[in-house]
Amino acid sequence: MRVLIVGAAGMVGRKLVTALLDRGVISGRKIEALSLVDVITPSVPDADIAIKAIAADMSEPGVAETLLVDRPDVIFHLAAIVSGEAEADFEKGYRINLDGTRYLLEAIRHVGSPYRPRLVFTSSIAVFGEPLPPVISDTHEHTPLTSYGTQKAICELLLADYSRRGFVDGVGIRLPTIAVRPGKPNKAASGFFSGIIREPLSGQEALLPVADSVRHWFASPRAAVGFLLHAAELDSAKLSSQRNLTMPGLAATVGEQIAALERVAGPKAVALIRRQPDQTIADIVAGWPQAFDASRAKSLGFVGETSFDEIIRIYIADELGGPPA
Amino acid sequence: MRVLIVGAAGMVGRKLVTALLDRGVISGRKIEALSLVDVITPSVPDADIAIKAIAADMSEPGVAETLLVDRPDVIFHLAAIVSGEAEADFEKGYRINLDGTRYLLEAIRHVGSPYRPRLVFTSSIAVFGEPLPPVISDTHEHTPLTSYGTQKAICELLLADYSRRGFVDGVGIRLPTIAVRPGKPNKAASGFFSGIIREPLSGQEALLPVADSVRHWFASPRAAVGFLLHAAELDSAKLSSQRNLTMPGLAATVGEQIAALERVAGPKAVALIRRQPDQTIADIVAGWPQAFDASRAKSLGFVGETSFDEIIRIYIADELGGPPA
Repeated sequence: MRVLIVGAAGMVGRKLVTALLDRGVISGRKIEALSLVDVITPSVPDADIAIKAIAADMSEPGVAETLLVDRPDVIFHLAAIVSGEAEADFEKGYRINLDGTRYLLEAIRHVGSPYRPRLVFTSSIAVFGEPLPPVISDTHEHTPLTSYGTQKAICELLLADYSRRGFVDGVGIRLPTIAVRPGKPNKAASGFFSGIIREPLSGQEALLPVADSVRHWFASPRAAVGFLLHAAELDSAKLSSQRNLTMPGLAATVGEQIAALERVAGPKAVALIRRQPDQTIADIVAGWPQAFDASRAKSLGFVGETSFDEIIRIYIADELGGPPA
Repeated sequence: MRVLIVGAAGMVGRKLVTALLDRGVISGRKIEALSLVDVITPSVPDADIAIKAIAADMSEPGVAETLLVDRPDVIFHLAAIVSGEAEADFEKGYRINLDGTRYLLEAIRHVGSPYRPRLVFTSSIAVFGEPLPPVISDTHEHTPLTSYGTQKAICELLLADYSRRGFVDGVGIRLPTIAVRPGKPNKAASGFFSGIIREPLSGQEALLPVADSVRHWFASPRAAVGFLLHAAELDSAKLSSQRNLTMPGLAATVGEQIAALERVAGPKAVALIRRQPDQTIADIVAGWPQAFDASRAKSLGFVGETSFDEIIRIYIADELGGPPA
């Protein structure tokens, strides 16, 4: 079993590498070789299997072909530029988030039968846009409000068509907003969802720019890695023609996040959250999905968190060296 | 007002040209020049305005730019290869139905502000696929079951994003199955929907390969041209971020088609329909949409037919020289 990870240097990519090395198998078959690809050379962890680290930009024509030379059985395609950057640089967004994926699909198609790898593609809830019901069903249309969401929605369509035609065995997973993200605060509009947990747990003040009633859709980094692994092992016959799935996240309001923080870390942590309303951020977040009915993914065995307490405990366990969660 | 029609040599394109010359205006502005483009040189009707006929393939890089040299105010993009051909020739389908449209959008973007033409794009109900409810709502997901449907769904997403970014003023319209199509019987799986009306009206036998209970979604060629003209004149501020619309067709079963034929043309016409079940065609058609709730398009002023009798009378009037319908 050979595994290729494109976008291996990112937060989720690095955790996926660790998880793959820990378990050592996919679908009962031993992982014998791992190729890690990103635009910067991914770091190579200690392991007793062959690991290649490759700096490559798949949005350049011809690069995708080179990544398939040893015919990986499973490909995780996590590479993307984020929403803000795709909005700021229109051409770069389409080149990396659309053309890069299309080059990969075409390279796989051109290898030809019987090569038909499992391709796990990370999509996003950004494929959804106006008009949004309070709970979004598995059959709701995609009318993205960003170029990033547009690019992800297009790649989902390509993945489904290339799979239907038998060129690839694709599974697309729409990730919830990942929380609690480790690391420094950033300027992403969604940053506060992690910040109001992460900073107080480290004794730092965190700014909260929106009302406590704001509701959104979350999964931990650990759950995200779980989704990727499950997507790699899924019996794709169960997917029929529908290759893309909304992952089961957890719907929580900011108020529920804060209540969970109080239960897990006490009132002193909560006291570090400072409300500083920011209308710009409030307006952006108002257009975001609040909750999904992810029945289809659940029925296929994908498992997310069931409480925000659990999401906080996972952060404490995985990032702060706390007790197992 | 300068108008460009890409795909002007097709059945709908030719009727659109005639309709534009008849009315002479779009949104109250006189049509001064008309450019007709297709892969074969479109025929040029007699008219007292400047008409250019151009043989060009927009799926070749650089061609789209040449079509914009006189900065058309309204562009109708009807060019596509049909479902069967896109399925038979994967690369050609993506090149013509996806890349051609993307080249056009990019060429428009590269002209740059303040150029922002109205682009009317013909999409298709082929963007819908499994699972299909009996009546498909305006917010139902796109999970096409053909490469053609995939290409149309992708172009819808691009049209919406390029419009949102202000590069173009796009309106995408999902056409119903067009009936009654003039001309010879063809081998399209949907051919019988027109054939069972057209052939009996000309005294010819028609084969019916499916059960009378099969239900589908129709508009006349005249209604299709009406949709295109209305899309060209629509106040796009009313569309908000949702640039693509399911057109209001008419849901009718084969049995209802036949009853309409009997009302319009009598039992002798109906007697020319010969039932010859074809399981292959029945299986294909079973996966097709049956009916839509096209409320959004209706509320925006798009008008389709309300009975199959009307669709038959339009065919008799427009193609057989019968009384006005």
